[in-house]
Amino acid sequence: MKFDHRTLPQRVRFGSAGAAAALAAEVAERGAQAVMVIGAPSEAELARSIAAGIEVALLWDDVAPHVPIAHAERARAAARDAGIDLVVSVGGGSTTGLAKAIALTERLPIVAVPTTYAGSEATNVWGLTTDSRKTTGVDDVVLPAVVIYDAALTLSLPVELSVASGLNAIAHCIDSMWAPNSDPLNRALAEEGIREVAAALPAIVADVGDVPARERMLYGAYVSAVAFASAGSGLHHKICHVLGGAYDLPHAQTHSAVLPQVLAFNVGASAEAEERIARALGASSAVRGLDSLYASIPATRALADVGYRAESIPESAGLILPLVPPSNPRPVHERDLEGILQAALEGRRIG
Amino acid sequence: MKFDHRTLPQRVRFGSAGAAAALAAEVAERGAQAVMVIGAPSEAELARSIAAGIEVALLWDDVAPHVPIAHAERARAAARDAGIDLVVSVGGGSTTGLAKAIALTERLPIVAVPTTYAGSEATNVWGLTTDSRKTTGVDDVVLPAVVIYDAALTLSLPVELSVASGLNAIAHCIDSMWAPNSDPLNRALAEEGIREVAAALPAIVADVGDVPARERMLYGAYVSAVAFASAGSGLHHKICHVLGGAYDLPHAQTHSAVLPQVLAFNVGASAEAEERIARALGASSAVRGLDSLYASIPATRALADVGYRAESIPESAGLILPLVPPSNPRPVHERDLEGILQAALEGRRIG
Repeated sequence: MKFDHRTLPQRVRFGSAGAAAALAAEVAERGAQAVMVIGAPSEAELARSIAAGIEVALLWDDVAPHVPIAHAERARAAARDAGIDLVVSVGGGSTTGLAKAIALTERLPIVAVPTTYAGSEATNVWGLTTDSRKTTGVDDVVLPAVVIYDAALTLSLPVELSVASGLNAIAHCIDSMWAPNSDPLNRALAEEGIREVAAALPAIVADVGDVPARERMLYGAYVSAVAFASAGSGLHHKICHVLGGAYDLPHAQTHSAVLPQVLAFNVGASAEAEERIARALGASSAVRGLDSLYASIPATRALADVGYRAESIPESAGLILPLVPPSNPRPVHERDLEGILQAALEGRRIG
Repeated sequence: MKFDHRTLPQRVRFGSAGAAAALAAEVAERGAQAVMVIGAPSEAELARSIAAGIEVALLWDDVAPHVPIAHAERARAAARDAGIDLVVSVGGGSTTGLAKAIALTERLPIVAVPTTYAGSEATNVWGLTTDSRKTTGVDDVVLPAVVIYDAALTLSLPVELSVASGLNAIAHCIDSMWAPNSDPLNRALAEEGIREVAAALPAIVADVGDVPARERMLYGAYVSAVAFASAGSGLHHKICHVLGGAYDLPHAQTHSAVLPQVLAFNVGASAEAEERIARALGASSAVRGLDSLYASIPATRALADVGYRAESIPESAGLILPLVPPSNPRPVHERDLEGILQAALEGRRIG
């Protein structure tokens, strides 16, 4: 057992229908004097209601996906001009991302109020887009000091999006088992994330308004993001990154189709991953557990269904091979990648 | 689900027989210029060898149990006089405690190199003794910035002490399930702690030199301490605190005898605790799992064996009652405490 683990500091205030009160308490405890509240136009009303108990120096709705640099610079200048001492983000990944872009240069603390299961609020990773090229980096200053989770804010997320986010979280956890910085601490959190998300997903599919299930999902997505931010990207994310970039495949469905095949390929080579994933899924084996989960929710199984084609397999394997992390529990050859991609293309059952 | 969780920042460098190299790397990365290394006289040789790769400005061996205030003040003055910018502690709870006492007033970072399973290195709790009265407090500045774990340093811990420490760690975890600040994050870590320590203990009893078991034990004791520091003291620790203080019972054996009875009393009222503890112990129920663990190691079961007497039960129950945390999963009456104490006195089997 050998590892080097950094636990990042963060406060989580978790409670349904309590975001406004939690934000007011947090602002009062910090003695913040000039608060900037960021919410996209579609969530401006929500941002206003969450901020009802605090004095808002600047309400900002100039939010765009992937944080274009021009947006970041406008928001930074506005924060400086208004003498902002605390940034509050209300929304999904793009909104949290803009708050991080401000924090990166202005060194301001963030209170994040997520309305999706994106998980960006749990990481010290920032991203900025210049001329449609995305740059990412790591800086502890962009890690939100506080996250306020309110499951009531997620009740309007449709089933399809909830399933996609949930499988994305499970992919974070499964890949954490063999990622470059995988260690027992992030594997323990990954196990917890799989357990909670897998328990929540079928319940949300059955009833989108199930508050306890939404709470488990939100908590599970949080620990998944913490685990993944610590462990890094493993084989699964490398494959999906290439497929998404080179063939313009849809993010969520690509993850959903690839994950069972990477699990089936790797898990026999890692006794700890097998034990943790099977236990988290309450199954006799990891692959059977994931297969059962997929059977209980509307999950994409075949890349063929989202436009990927057999002819692309050799090229894809060639692009992926140099990206395979040395930490992978078994060696990966080009023919292994072709096998994984073929199985994902067909949506072959793994159970 | 409602909670308020603070995750504290800490780096853990874990690896057997690697403490000296890890310390040298850490000192170099920090650019520390004047390092104070603390080690009790019995561990002075060890401290010197771990510090072999760094320049030591001050080697300090004036360590005493429970951190008497005079010891703290001498060490603080020495640190100031030498212009110390980093404190390194090599040892058990008393040594880590002295480093914390220095950090409390001098605001210096600590690198802790534990040689026992005490767990103090994972918490922001400090303790000082004045005229044989112990004062404790909480301040994030005393949390070691870095912990270097080297299982090779624990190989000399005798079986009896290892078992006592291991059961202490398991008590931390079980009590975390219903402590005042118990939340899903610290309960997940507590589950992990139980699993690792319970797996390690019988292996260490079988072979004190089993390095993988020592690693699991060290890692398990760490996550147990993180969980407990976050969750706080539950019913079990309140009972043991009273018994230790009022009847001068030995710490470790008291914990060992009381724990099964508190578990048996509480666990039926907390479905999550039952599920997590049973799963961590790989058993069909939490009580059966703990009973099996006790059967596999030399664990004290009866308070009668360490000098506690039936006549003390009513008085003890009266002393404990006002300390029962409101977070306890079921109401606790005086007769309940008498029942727990009677069962612990006899060492009644719970399985």
